[in-house]
Amino acid sequence: MTDATRASLADRLLAGERGALARMISWAENAHAGFPAALEAFWSRVGRAPRLGITGPPGAGKSTLVDELARAVRAQERTVGVLAVDPSSPLTGGALLGDRIRMEDHTTDPGVFIRSMASRGSHGGMARAAVDAMDVMDAYGLDEVFVETVGVGQAEYDVVAAADTVLVVLCPGAGDGVQALKSGLLEVADVIAINKADLPGADRLATDMEESVHIRTAGREVWTPPVVTCSAGRRDGVERVLEAIASHRAHLEDHLVEHRRAKRVQQVRQVVGQRLDHALWVTGACAPRVEAHLREGVTPYAAAARLFEDLTRSLGDLVQEPSA
Amino acid sequence: MTDATRASLADRLLAGERGALARMISWAENAHAGFPAALEAFWSRVGRAPRLGITGPPGAGKSTLVDELARAVRAQERTVGVLAVDPSSPLTGGALLGDRIRMEDHTTDPGVFIRSMASRGSHGGMARAAVDAMDVMDAYGLDEVFVETVGVGQAEYDVVAAADTVLVVLCPGAGDGVQALKSGLLEVADVIAINKADLPGADRLATDMEESVHIRTAGREVWTPPVVTCSAGRRDGVERVLEAIASHRAHLEDHLVEHRRAKRVQQVRQVVGQRLDHALWVTGACAPRVEAHLREGVTPYAAAARLFEDLTRSLGDLVQEPSA
Repeated sequence: MTDATRASLADRLLAGERGALARMISWAENAHAGFPAALEAFWSRVGRAPRLGITGPPGAGKSTLVDELARAVRAQERTVGVLAVDPSSPLTGGALLGDRIRMEDHTTDPGVFIRSMASRGSHGGMARAAVDAMDVMDAYGLDEVFVETVGVGQAEYDVVAAADTVLVVLCPGAGDGVQALKSGLLEVADVIAINKADLPGADRLATDMEESVHIRTAGREVWTPPVVTCSAGRRDGVERVLEAIASHRAHLEDHLVEHRRAKRVQQVRQVVGQRLDHALWVTGACAPRVEAHLREGVTPYAAAARLFEDLTRSLGDLVQEPSA
Repeated sequence: MTDATRASLADRLLAGERGALARMISWAENAHAGFPAALEAFWSRVGRAPRLGITGPPGAGKSTLVDELARAVRAQERTVGVLAVDPSSPLTGGALLGDRIRMEDHTTDPGVFIRSMASRGSHGGMARAAVDAMDVMDAYGLDEVFVETVGVGQAEYDVVAAADTVLVVLCPGAGDGVQALKSGLLEVADVIAINKADLPGADRLATDMEESVHIRTAGREVWTPPVVTCSAGRRDGVERVLEAIASHRAHLEDHLVEHRRAKRVQQVRQVVGQRLDHALWVTGACAPRVEAHLREGVTPYAAAARLFEDLTRSLGDLVQEPSA
């Protein structure tokens, strides 16, 4: 593929061609070698769409809520892109697509663009692909970008953490408050929605979450995630979720640029980490060196310590060991 | 904690104290600062127990099969340690423990040691913790070590890949052949068990898997994973699974040391990767440098490329860029 072809796909994306949107997201998904150059070509158009990440345990009703949020965005005559990502369970690809059938009344609406991404067993890279796909949707001109994960876990957090606002969806029963706390879900939350609020235990769960949020944020100059209740399946309380999202966006307003730059640094960290790992272990000389250490009978930790010392000596002032 | 205390926990482990076994696994789980020194103390006793990793989609009946395999090991008057790991879904900790109730007839048997580990939202590290815990169980003197994951995904593969033999459990319906293929499950499999073989579609799934294995391994001098059927819940065909595992162990026999050393190199790779990431990005100077690049308006990929160039220049002959 020539640079001209690459540029033309970016041009077609910027011209609003839907086929180019789909194809450029495939480039993002497959880590196509042409993607970085294409990104250069449309980078100036990235950064306009607010990005909302949605996560929570399976069964909390995320898809139904996303569906209703998309409906609300459309009611304002704004367009929306929905990226549904399943980084940890390749085998649930079917379930994820099944969920999406609920959104089928959107499929004939050109103002809604829906795309699923499931892991295909590739080493990491899902968070990178998701950010790249959001950049593509943003540059294409969609007014809002949603990224939704199917499960919960580190890989899912990495995906939604790239959004401006993270909405954590819980429901009574599926994952109780203690579990949500333990799992680190609250650490990534900007807004907490207790869905299926008509079920028993919803009020108690909301109170638990409010207390946990309060303990976490009290006395610190940080955003206090609002806890709101809704029943997306009954189209009840969705406006409260929208208001909570809007309040977080208003809070970000003043420092949105810094907020996003900090998230971009994390993106660069992932990209560099993967390239460095490849350069050291796949094409580089670390594996045989460590193998030699292990043959001498040292433990893996001792072998790691020796190699790490060699590496950090070379890296000079770019690294700093924790002052242990 | 003094070195003497650390040494004494290792001594107590080697003396066969069950409390020391549980506590040392907690050290492994929590990445306790004393673990590497303790490992030095018991490293000479690591490497005797065959290690079996079990993975597959939720609902395939992994726990029931593991239960039956443990029963078979006990029938040979051999002891077994079972590590049940859920790296990607902290919120399913309850389900995992629920599954374990099925093993409760083992809980009064001192020849079976069962331990669950669920992610608590910590950054990675689950595969490291699992390998360390297996080393502890091995040094303690358990005759066999099983490590079982709850779901499927990269984090789960990393956990089971540290075992000598990886058993992939599928069942008709839950995850069909095409999905298993796409997910990369077959890439990690040494033995494939089609469980719930009494359900419709089991023979077809077995045939599909055999063909896929054949396509993957034909003409290459590699192990061809046997595909066996069983119905663990009915205690039917478990001996076929055991025979398939035994045949893989016999195949490994000649080069078990090399096989394990290659897996240890991967362990060192993970440990070094995490330390390097921390040294570069948390305590080191990479984040402000990248932030400065981003302020100039370059794309994240361009910022990554600049930093990567700086890093590899320092690392000299330890790294080698792929000859692109």
